[in-house]
Amino acid sequence: MNESLHRVVIVGGGFGGIHAAKALRKAPVDITVLDRRNFHLFQPLLYQVATGALSPGNITSPIRRCIRRNRNTTVLLDEVVGIDPENKLVKLNDRGIAYDTLILAAGLGNYYHGHDWEQWAPGLKTIEDATHIRGRVLYAFEAAEREPEPEAQVSWLTFVVVGAGETGVELAGALGELANDTLKDDFRRINPRDAKILLIEGQDQVLPAYPGKLGIAARRSLERLGVTVYLSSSVKDISADRVTVERADGTEETIRTHCIVWAAGIQASPLARTVAEATGAQSDGLGRLMVQPDLTIPGYPDIIVLGDIANFSHQPGGPLPGVAPVAMQQGRYAGRLINARLAGKTADPFRYHDKGHMATIGRRAAVANFGRLQFSGLPAWLMWLGIHLAFLIEFEHRVLVLVQWAWNYFTRNRGARLIAPPINGAKR
Amino acid sequence: MNESLHRVVIVGGGFGGIHAAKALRKAPVDITVLDRRNFHLFQPLLYQVATGALSPGNITSPIRRCIRRNRNTTVLLDEVVGIDPENKLVKLNDRGIAYDTLILAAGLGNYYHGHDWEQWAPGLKTIEDATHIRGRVLYAFEAAEREPEPEAQVSWLTFVVVGAGETGVELAGALGELANDTLKDDFRRINPRDAKILLIEGQDQVLPAYPGKLGIAARRSLERLGVTVYLSSSVKDISADRVTVERADGTEETIRTHCIVWAAGIQASPLARTVAEATGAQSDGLGRLMVQPDLTIPGYPDIIVLGDIANFSHQPGGPLPGVAPVAMQQGRYAGRLINARLAGKTADPFRYHDKGHMATIGRRAAVANFGRLQFSGLPAWLMWLGIHLAFLIEFEHRVLVLVQWAWNYFTRNRGARLIAPPINGAKR
Repeated sequence: MNESLHRVVIVGGGFGGIHAAKALRKAPVDITVLDRRNFHLFQPLLYQVATGALSPGNITSPIRRCIRRNRNTTVLLDEVVGIDPENKLVKLNDRGIAYDTLILAAGLGNYYHGHDWEQWAPGLKTIEDATHIRGRVLYAFEAAEREPEPEAQVSWLTFVVVGAGETGVELAGALGELANDTLKDDFRRINPRDAKILLIEGQDQVLPAYPGKLGIAARRSLERLGVTVYLSSSVKDISADRVTVERADGTEETIRTHCIVWAAGIQASPLARTVAEATGAQSDGLGRLMVQPDLTIPGYPDIIVLGDIANFSHQPGGPLPGVAPVAMQQGRYAGRLINARLAGKTADPFRYHDKGHMATIGRRAAVANFGRLQFSGLPAWLMWLGIHLAFLIEFEHRVLVLVQWAWNYFTRNRGARLIAPPINGAKR
Repeated sequence: MNESLHRVVIVGGGFGGIHAAKALRKAPVDITVLDRRNFHLFQPLLYQVATGALSPGNITSPIRRCIRRNRNTTVLLDEVVGIDPENKLVKLNDRGIAYDTLILAAGLGNYYHGHDWEQWAPGLKTIEDATHIRGRVLYAFEAAEREPEPEAQVSWLTFVVVGAGETGVELAGALGELANDTLKDDFRRINPRDAKILLIEGQDQVLPAYPGKLGIAARRSLERLGVTVYLSSSVKDISADRVTVERADGTEETIRTHCIVWAAGIQASPLARTVAEATGAQSDGLGRLMVQPDLTIPGYPDIIVLGDIANFSHQPGGPLPGVAPVAMQQGRYAGRLINARLAGKTADPFRYHDKGHMATIGRRAAVANFGRLQFSGLPAWLMWLGIHLAFLIEFEHRVLVLVQWAWNYFTRNRGARLIAPPINGAKR
């Protein structure tokens, strides 16, 4: 560590943190990246881990590997518990780390709108979430095969996904494929095709952030995979073996199931709250910190907040969505901002360039929204494939994921179908 | 289920159980395979998961997928807690399953010679063992990078493998590669090449079951990878942060370390003991059931015991070793025996055909013992590669593992380097 250099501390090794560090690779700064986990996670493909198509190793890469070309960067595995903005310190459990500029990119967790549903309806944010959901899904088929009582068997074969945003739609589509294709020859007492997959959405279309036309196309693709879509429906209660839904017409329906996945809401990392308390920064309903046009918080030009933990509302259309492209662009902007300041210059405000959104539904369907250009079906699916491969952070992963996908596609198999760690009766 | 058919119940979906089921694919029998886990595990490559070279999904395959061509076979995810040999029932937690012939292939666990060392020195028998050891190894490098105190740093960079059989040798070699090759550019405050890898063996050569010449070749290959070998040394004590070793000359040495792996002994699955109590069968010091020349236990011709849970001593050279080829051959024999009996014939006693043993040490070295033919170095390594690929149970895995290995080989990277589930400070 060179004490005379400008010290940049980056909290979080997600898309925002990694791209900030990369943008500062040649800058005369001393960078420390802090993360609780040793790996960067490609969250957009988590649902493929949750459904056995990819392994955790395929979509993660050690943070220190991602930025190994940064000779000016030290990566430390540690937990940030707060900040001391007056003394310019990041607080760890056992000590503090001094910064000249702090980049907060700590990400988010699931948001249950105040309910205590997490144990019954896990979300899909971490690798452990994904392997846990994978275990629950596969265990449900195993339990159904073992279950003599028909009604209980039906409940094991019922899967509920709450929230029809990108994550919910992609997960429901993959579950449809799993039941209808992958598992079709594997059981003797049940027919996996009898599985009932329910996708519950509070708004009146699938993929509410997309144009209505694409929402309809997505819904059609989902139904072709055997997914039942409930629109304008809200979840009233969740417990170990059932979910209660209020339908559009006001009636309540209780569904027996042992496998519920939550894809209906996120909130900022708890760190955001402690930062708000320490700096007096405003935060929104999801706990995200309100940032200025240059991503700093008022009164603290040395604290840059970006990615899912930030609420950037200086562009039309409300706060920017919590997606990877926003975090990447903001990370690169943070690098430019620091470089400009070191050169005694100022930087233009941050501007998000929306390159479009897409969601894939099963083996050959997707929807893509690039503003004026809107696709669905096979062209959108091929585009989804190419873009997701291109953004996988390591070239190695691209090759292996492509081979794995090609294999899954042609054999209709899914290679990573292990219940591990074990669930309930499935002990070591 | 056809009630009039001969009912075969197979306990365990390892090498023995799977090969028994496959051998009975066309037999007029009704087969049930019971296992606590939903997947078959290719144990010989577990050490590659433990060192980040392969993902768990690469070396596991759902049991029901392995034997999906067996239209006469039902696979159930359940735990066998005992047997009732008089009423011919396998006991599960909540019910019994009737058999006409029972095949016990329940495998084994680690054997700590009566010591309570498992929490400090995990073995390498399950997928969870492998991901846990992987996490401990990678976490040790992370902790060393974070550690300001030099002596504590050294203890984090010290790795101890107990037992220089095939598992211990392969694991120590892979750790040597990890420290010297894979991680060499990834840290800023430590040099991973300073890591000290210690392999402790009670007997006077590495790979005690191999000819002395190959033991010497293996030791030389290990030392080239930076592994220090202690022969004729025994472990006296293990605790959270140290291991005490009695060396060949009678002196005691205490080594500070946070990462110890146990590869020094196995014992039969606890199920073996309950079977011994129920049938009066003899068992050996490792809890394995003594079997007759046809793999049955005395007085119970309808109970076949095979693989790691069996002690077969009817060939010269003492009991057969607990390796995959023995279990596979015994599984196929069990199938032949049942077919012969159904046809009213008798079967010859079981005979193990030893096709040789091999162990690999790092990137380009291995030792192979085929009786008169003995190899070391590159030819043995290529042979090891071919044989292990050939025996991976799914063709898909062969392709993907080959691509992954080729990648690892040429880039000196290891793709699956995640600490998951998290260890100590590395929380979600």
